[in-house]
Amino acid sequence: MKARVLVRLKPGIMDVQGAAVKRALAGLGFSELNDLRVGKVIDIDMNEPTPEGARARVGEMCRQLLANPILEDYTIETVDDLAPRGAAR
Amino acid sequence: MKARVLVRLKPGIMDVQGAAVKRALAGLGFSELNDLRVGKVIDIDMNEPTPEGARARVGEMCRQLLANPILEDYTIETVDDLAPRGAAR
Repeated sequence: MKARVLVRLKPGIMDVQGAAVKRALAGLGFSELNDLRVGKVIDIDMNEPTPEGARARVGEMCRQLLANPILEDYTIETVDDLAPRGAAR
Repeated sequence: MKARVLVRLKPGIMDVQGAAVKRALAGLGFSELNDLRVGKVIDIDMNEPTPEGARARVGEMCRQLLANPILEDYTIETVDDLAPRGAAR
Protein backbone atom coordinates (compact mmCIF):
# COMPACT_ATOMS: atom_id res chain seq x y z
CA MET A 1 0.00 0.00 0.00
CA LYS A 2 1.28 3.43 -0.89
CA ALA A 3 0.48 6.43 1.26
CA ARG A 4 1.33 10.08 1.09
CA VAL A 5 1.64 12.44 4.03
CA LEU A 6 1.49 16.20 3.62
CA VAL A 7 3.00 18.09 6.55
CA ARG A 8 2.32 21.81 6.61
CA LEU A 9 2.79 24.61 9.10
CA LYS A 10 -0.44 25.45 10.94
CA PRO A 11 -2.31 28.42 9.44
CA GLY A 12 -1.27 30.89 12.14
CA ILE A 13 2.45 30.07 11.96
CA MET A 14 4.68 32.36 9.93
CA ASP A 15 6.07 30.51 6.89
CA VAL A 16 9.41 32.18 6.25
CA GLN A 17 10.39 29.89 3.39
CA GLY A 18 7.04 30.39 1.66
CA ALA A 19 7.30 34.16 2.02
CA ALA A 20 10.78 34.11 0.50
CA VAL A 21 9.68 31.97 -2.44
CA LYS A 22 6.63 34.16 -3.02
CA ARG A 23 8.80 37.24 -3.08
CA ALA A 24 11.31 35.65 -5.43
CA LEU A 25 8.50 34.67 -7.81
CA ALA A 26 7.12 38.21 -7.70
CA GLY A 27 10.57 39.40 -8.70
CA LEU A 28 10.42 37.08 -11.71
CA GLY A 29 7.10 38.62 -12.81
CA PHE A 30 4.66 36.23 -11.16
CA SER A 31 2.50 38.94 -9.64
CA GLU A 32 -0.73 36.92 -9.53
CA LEU A 33 0.14 35.10 -6.30
CA ASN A 34 -2.08 35.68 -3.30
CA ASP A 35 -0.44 33.21 -1.00
CA LEU A 36 2.24 30.55 -1.14
CA ARG A 37 3.25 28.13 1.58
CA VAL A 38 5.88 25.43 1.60
CA GLY A 39 5.53 22.12 3.39
CA LYS A 40 6.78 18.55 3.19
CA VAL A 41 5.46 15.55 1.28
CA ILE A 42 6.42 12.10 2.51
CA ASP A 43 5.77 9.21 0.12
CA ILE A 44 5.54 5.87 1.87
CA ASP A 45 5.44 2.37 0.45
CA MET A 46 4.54 -0.12 3.16
CA ASN A 47 3.51 -3.73 3.75
CA GLU A 48 -0.05 -3.12 4.83
CA PRO A 49 -2.89 -4.58 2.78
CA THR A 50 -5.77 -2.22 3.63
CA PRO A 51 -6.10 1.56 3.28
CA GLU A 52 -7.61 1.74 6.77
CA GLY A 53 -4.68 -0.12 8.29
CA ALA A 54 -2.17 1.98 6.37
CA ARG A 55 -3.86 5.19 7.46
CA ALA A 56 -3.83 4.11 11.09
CA ARG A 57 -0.15 3.18 11.04
CA VAL A 58 0.89 6.30 9.16
CA GLY A 59 -1.11 8.42 11.62
CA GLU A 60 0.91 6.82 14.40
CA MET A 61 4.15 7.63 12.52
CA CYS A 62 3.02 11.26 12.20
CA ARG A 63 2.27 11.55 15.91
CA GLN A 64 5.55 9.92 16.92
CA LEU A 65 7.98 11.40 14.39
CA LEU A 66 6.86 12.92 11.10
CA ALA A 67 5.01 16.00 12.31
CA ASN A 68 5.57 18.49 15.11
CA PRO A 69 2.10 18.85 16.62
CA ILE A 70 2.85 22.30 18.04
CA LEU A 71 3.66 23.84 14.67
CA GLU A 72 2.38 21.49 11.99
CA ASP A 73 -0.75 19.84 10.65
CA TYR A 74 -0.65 16.67 8.62
CA THR A 75 -2.87 15.07 5.99
CA ILE A 76 -2.72 11.38 5.12
CA GLU A 77 -3.77 10.13 1.69
CA THR A 78 -3.74 6.50 0.65
CA VAL A 79 -3.61 5.09 -2.84
CA ASP A 80 -7.41 5.29 -3.13
CA ASP A 81 -7.21 9.06 -2.93
CA LEU A 82 -4.29 9.28 -5.30
CA ALA A 83 -5.81 7.92 -8.51
CA PRO A 84 -5.04 10.43 -11.26
CA ARG A 85 -7.84 12.80 -12.16
CA GLY A 86 -6.22 14.64 -15.00
CA ALA A 87 -3.36 15.99 -12.94
CA ALA A 88 -0.27 16.92 -14.96
CA ARG A 89 2.25 14.40 -13.71
CA MET B 1 -7.58 29.24 -8.09
CA LYS B 2 -5.62 27.05 -5.70
CA ALA B 3 -2.84 24.83 -6.95
CA ARG B 4 -0.48 22.41 -5.30
CA VAL B 5 2.99 21.50 -6.50
CA LEU B 6 4.77 18.38 -5.34
CA VAL B 7 8.53 18.52 -5.84
CA ARG B 8 10.37 15.25 -5.37
CA LEU B 9 13.85 13.96 -6.04
CA LYS B 10 14.05 11.97 -9.27
CA PRO B 11 13.86 8.20 -8.74
CA GLY B 12 17.57 7.57 -9.26
CA ILE B 13 18.71 10.26 -6.83
CA MET B 14 19.68 9.19 -3.31
CA ASP B 15 17.25 10.65 -0.75
CA VAL B 16 19.34 11.07 2.38
CA GLN B 17 16.56 12.67 4.42
CA GLY B 18 14.11 9.93 3.47
CA ALA B 19 16.61 7.23 4.38
CA ALA B 20 17.20 8.85 7.76
CA VAL B 21 13.46 9.13 8.49
CA LYS B 22 12.88 5.52 7.41
CA ARG B 23 15.62 4.33 9.72
CA ALA B 24 14.31 6.41 12.62
CA LEU B 25 10.83 4.95 12.10
CA ALA B 26 12.25 1.43 12.01
CA GLY B 27 13.88 2.21 15.34
CA LEU B 28 10.46 3.13 16.71
CA GLY B 29 9.04 -0.23 15.63
CA PHE B 30 7.62 0.67 12.22
CA SER B 31 9.17 -2.28 10.41
CA GLU B 32 6.58 -2.50 7.62
CA LEU B 33 8.14 0.26 5.52
CA ASN B 34 9.46 -0.68 2.09
CA ASP B 35 10.39 2.79 0.98
CA LEU B 36 10.04 6.36 2.20
CA ARG B 37 10.98 9.52 0.37
CA VAL B 38 10.69 13.14 1.44
CA GLY B 39 9.87 16.00 -0.90
CA LYS B 40 8.29 19.44 -0.85
CA VAL B 41 4.68 20.52 -1.21
CA ILE B 42 4.01 24.09 -2.30
CA ASP B 43 0.45 25.36 -1.84
CA ILE B 44 -0.36 28.29 -4.09
CA ASP B 45 -3.37 30.60 -4.08
CA MET B 46 -3.36 32.74 -7.22
CA ASN B 47 -5.49 35.14 -9.26
CA GLU B 48 -6.12 32.92 -12.23
CA PRO B 49 -9.66 31.90 -13.12
CA THR B 50 -9.10 28.66 -15.04
CA PRO B 51 -7.35 25.42 -14.04
CA GLU B 52 -5.60 25.34 -17.43
CA GLY B 53 -4.25 28.85 -16.98
CA ALA B 54 -3.17 28.13 -13.42
CA ARG B 55 -1.41 24.94 -14.47
CA ALA B 56 0.46 26.75 -17.25
CA ARG B 57 1.61 29.55 -14.95
CA VAL B 58 2.61 27.20 -12.14
CA GLY B 59 4.53 25.07 -14.66
CA GLU B 60 6.45 28.18 -15.61
CA MET B 61 7.17 28.89 -11.91
CA CYS B 62 8.49 25.35 -11.51
CA ARG B 63 10.78 25.65 -14.49
CA GLN B 64 12.10 29.04 -13.39
CA LEU B 65 12.38 28.63 -9.63
CA LEU B 66 10.49 25.95 -7.73
CA ALA B 67 12.19 22.80 -9.00
CA ASN B 68 15.75 21.90 -9.90
CA PRO B 69 15.35 20.03 -13.20
CA ILE B 70 18.62 18.14 -12.75
CA LEU B 71 17.58 16.54 -9.49
CA GLU B 72 13.85 16.94 -9.12
CA ASP B 73 10.53 16.10 -10.76
CA TYR B 74 7.40 18.10 -10.12
CA THR B 75 3.68 17.41 -10.20
CA ILE B 76 1.07 20.14 -10.47
CA GLU B 77 -2.44 19.64 -9.14
CA THR B 78 -5.20 22.23 -9.35
CA VAL B 79 -8.29 22.46 -7.21
CA ASP B 80 -10.15 20.08 -9.56
CA ASP B 81 -7.78 17.30 -8.61
CA LEU B 82 -7.89 18.15 -4.94
CA ALA B 83 -11.55 17.46 -4.14
CA PRO B 84 -11.58 15.21 -1.09
CA ARG B 85 -12.09 11.51 -1.74
CA GLY B 86 -12.25 10.25 1.79
CA ALA B 87 -8.78 11.43 2.74
CA ALA B 88 -8.23 12.00 6.45
CA ARG B 89 -7.68 15.72 6.60
